[in-house]
Amino acid sequence: MSCDFRELAVPGIQGLHPYLPGKPVEELERELGISNIVKLASNENPRGPGASVTRAVSASVAGLSRYPDSNGFELKQALETELGVESSRITLGNGSNDVLDLLGRTFIQPGDEVIYSEYSFVVYALVTQALAAKAVVTPAKNWGHDLDAMADAITDRTRMIFIANPNNPTGTWLTDSELQTFLAKVPAHVVVVLDEAYTEYVALDDFPNGLLLQAQYPNLVVTRTFSKAYGLAALRVGFAVANEAITDLLNRIRQPFNVNSIALSAAVAALSDQEYLKRSVQLNTAGMAQLECGLAALELEWIPSAGNFLTVDMKQDAAEYYQALLHQGVIVRPVANYGMPNHLRISIGLPEENQRCLDALAKVLSA
Amino acid sequence: MSCDFRELAVPGIQGLHPYLPGKPVEELERELGISNIVKLASNENPRGPGASVTRAVSASVAGLSRYPDSNGFELKQALETELGVESSRITLGNGSNDVLDLLGRTFIQPGDEVIYSEYSFVVYALVTQALAAKAVVTPAKNWGHDLDAMADAITDRTRMIFIANPNNPTGTWLTDSELQTFLAKVPAHVVVVLDEAYTEYVALDDFPNGLLLQAQYPNLVVTRTFSKAYGLAALRVGFAVANEAITDLLNRIRQPFNVNSIALSAAVAALSDQEYLKRSVQLNTAGMAQLECGLAALELEWIPSAGNFLTVDMKQDAAEYYQALLHQGVIVRPVANYGMPNHLRISIGLPEENQRCLDALAKVLSA
Repeated sequence: MSCDFRELAVPGIQGLHPYLPGKPVEELERELGISNIVKLASNENPRGPGASVTRAVSASVAGLSRYPDSNGFELKQALETELGVESSRITLGNGSNDVLDLLGRTFIQPGDEVIYSEYSFVVYALVTQALAAKAVVTPAKNWGHDLDAMADAITDRTRMIFIANPNNPTGTWLTDSELQTFLAKVPAHVVVVLDEAYTEYVALDDFPNGLLLQAQYPNLVVTRTFSKAYGLAALRVGFAVANEAITDLLNRIRQPFNVNSIALSAAVAALSDQEYLKRSVQLNTAGMAQLECGLAALELEWIPSAGNFLTVDMKQDAAEYYQALLHQGVIVRPVANYGMPNHLRISIGLPEENQRCLDALAKVLSA
Repeated sequence: MSCDFRELAVPGIQGLHPYLPGKPVEELERELGISNIVKLASNENPRGPGASVTRAVSASVAGLSRYPDSNGFELKQALETELGVESSRITLGNGSNDVLDLLGRTFIQPGDEVIYSEYSFVVYALVTQALAAKAVVTPAKNWGHDLDAMADAITDRTRMIFIANPNNPTGTWLTDSELQTFLAKVPAHVVVVLDEAYTEYVALDDFPNGLLLQAQYPNLVVTRTFSKAYGLAALRVGFAVANEAITDLLNRIRQPFNVNSIALSAAVAALSDQEYLKRSVQLNTAGMAQLECGLAALELEWIPSAGNFLTVDMKQDAAEYYQALLHQGVIVRPVANYGMPNHLRISIGLPEENQRCLDALAKVLSA
């Protein structure tokens, strides 16, 4: 009575390699026995939660033995008010990873084609592979999405297109006119998923707000997250805004309690604290200038970024630098799994964390 | 430029009806404008969290802007110690709903057969439908699983069998000898998912512990949850224990941060507080006796239950009683969606909550 369960798995999963997260601080502590570690590996908000979130969490504790509100009524109401989108068009997720996963499972069958760009967020590839769909990966242009190539890649089998704006792990971005030119070319039955995980950080002219394009393009789905500028990565809250038909489908397949109670309450609190958001963005802008200045002094080059991170060209295989930085107590993110073996992605931290990183880089570069 | 997105969805989802949760207290407050509501609708632990959980949540707040540990290292270590299963065999989930979903997506393809019992937990049907598999629903015996019928239903297309012990919404249970007789008949390549969400409440002789049967039956997967006796329904923590090959597959498809940081910490704390667990079970035992005594006095009949709930035969369509109880401020659970239109499922609450329910029942029965 034994058998190979791997062979029994559905085809997509047999070929799936799991997501590689940034190394947790605790793991590095266990492995190297060092402390005072700086983690700039997961594009997290370095500030910690705001006071309103802390209060909301405390207030939620008494209700921990009760199931969450399956419909996320209060959070959807708050999003409706803050973003001006009807709650009937919002699907809440356990992080935006969850809604990306749900979107794939709703529309993609084995053999369907899914388009995404080289160097774009790895979850698009994972979702496509898990569903045994055909990944159509268009070459990047200047490390970012080549929207002309993506439009040209559309065929009768194309069901979904993933676009990240700004993109992770490169930080590249698309302008409103570029995006609209592209959307106008996409057939109405192809779902375009615009991942705006980092949108709150962007203060560029001609930068698109996907939510404002949905009336014109009903096949456009926008995903956002509380994990970045809102500072709630630990709690896993993301959401999709889509037309009502798509929203209905996502809510059928969504696990009924996919967002937990503390996460729901904390997200409502975070949304109400726009001052926290504003200061987080200011801190990021200042931190990016600090990091760019330091990197330039080290004669390093990076990809211009609209996110909360910089992806740096180490001019040779970056794995050794990554390891050397770990021994300096600085965790950054290798991106070899994105086909970028010479780059390291560095999240913007607090001023002293950015300096620790620059000092560590100087040390390992001169070693 | 418009199209019917429902027609574009994968076949399973087109036919999917979402899970119906118990009515939240806040929703009833909004709808009827009443307060002092008793919710006995979702088989929750009525006690609220223990002190160790409250402390763990408070200690987690400072880290809310950091991603969770994707591997759940500490919780898996704690489970290894408490349950005696290797952490390499544990998959953590966003509630056990998540691991049930992952199990389905790992092994079930459209057209495969999935066996489960009439009146068993609705998530088995939802998972099967979402994957466009063929549901083979065996008739219940005395409201519980008919294991002989389930074994007879196995064909060459059978990929998975779901068994709940005790079962929700009926409270029925299977003995160790019944379960082992069944497992011996199941081909090695058919995955048997034994859902033990309510196992901590059971103190019956000859009641099986699925974890002890896995060495003999490598195709047996056991799922458990922190949502019931451990009192953490709000936080969504469940897990599967399986062989290492299945665990590897589940971890490939699992969302990397599917369990949030506060949930991980709270579950470790809950696991360490076995006194809380013991008292919760004692409270349940006493509450069930109280409810049974009161129901008998009202000349109502119920299905004998090993869980934290009683499913009561109202002898006629129960929908009106359900509505009447809502107006008394008591939320119970209609189970018409399980094909049990005459029954209401009542979760065991605190003594005063049980009494409120019995008083309300007396009132609506005499109306």
